[in-house]
Amino acid sequence: MSRLDSFIRRLEAQRACLDLAACLVAELDGDVLELGLGNGRTYDHLRQLFPGRRIYVCERRVAAHPECIPPAELLLLGDMRDTLQAARVLLGRQVVLAHLDPATGERAASGALAAELAPLIVPLLRSGGVLVSEPAINQVALTPLPLPDSVAPGRYNLYRFVSCQSSA
Amino acid sequence: MSRLDSFIRRLEAQRACLDLAACLVAELDGDVLELGLGNGRTYDHLRQLFPGRRIYVCERRVAAHPECIPPAELLLLGDMRDTLQAARVLLGRQVVLAHLDPATGERAASGALAAELAPLIVPLLRSGGVLVSEPAINQVALTPLPLPDSVAPGRYNLYRFVSCQSSA
Repeated sequence: MSRLDSFIRRLEAQRACLDLAACLVAELDGDVLELGLGNGRTYDHLRQLFPGRRIYVCERRVAAHPECIPPAELLLLGDMRDTLQAARVLLGRQVVLAHLDPATGERAASGALAAELAPLIVPLLRSGGVLVSEPAINQVALTPLPLPDSVAPGRYNLYRFVSCQSSA
Repeated sequence: MSRLDSFIRRLEAQRACLDLAACLVAELDGDVLELGLGNGRTYDHLRQLFPGRRIYVCERRVAAHPECIPPAELLLLGDMRDTLQAARVLLGRQVVLAHLDPATGERAASGALAAELAPLIVPLLRSGGVLVSEPAINQVALTPLPLPDSVAPGRYNLYRFVSCQSSA
């Protein structure tokens, strides 16, 4: 498999997981959180999946396509390790879907960053909310969900957050 | 369609066209020419399609993944408008497959660059050679070829160069 093949598979898996996650949270009220804007392609996909929701975006420095720049009031600018801490007040437990895909280009670095960010994301999720993530996340509060049929195990990851305080 | 959808379609079309082009030139001797290296994903795909051929790569400045950097002797470094001129001596009419995908991110700019480069590419192609290009190319020496079934018209483009001196 070439790097082109594996890149296509990764993008297809990302899209299939986001599409499935959108169905899974359809009945829940709340916001969406995109962790990393990049060129804004995935953000654009989220906009189409969630036309009625606020989509907050964490990014260090915006360098997206001009058509894919979030409104200023939904941008959390800075290092995610800081902005996610600060976002607790803003986002409370109102996030129904978070998408994490650091894609540093280096597997170990992406995994390390995801491990660092996961404990900062979980407190933002409402019970029943879903985390879609490319590095696998090991957090006791997150239960792995079945992947779409088209996605091979480990290629992308879906988790459900269920609060201990909830009966769900 | 989101920008993520359209990006995936574009990559799938690129791959399908390159795979088909590889079949179309299987019987011809000669080299491959990649116009633009980028992150090296497509170059890696070409390496897998053409393990036995020299793959020349034009690039202004190499910024690819470390595993996708061509051997120095096959790198044509600099502005393609200059290097393609100079490459006539090196490549003669020995190119059986050229791939052009400037992907400047701006449709008009990509089209203008492709129009400027096409007359510099044609003299490198051997008769029967194929040009795979994302902006459409309008050159009398290049005959459009049918696309793979999965590729919608205009999404990617395949051309065959047939020399007037040839009976093919």
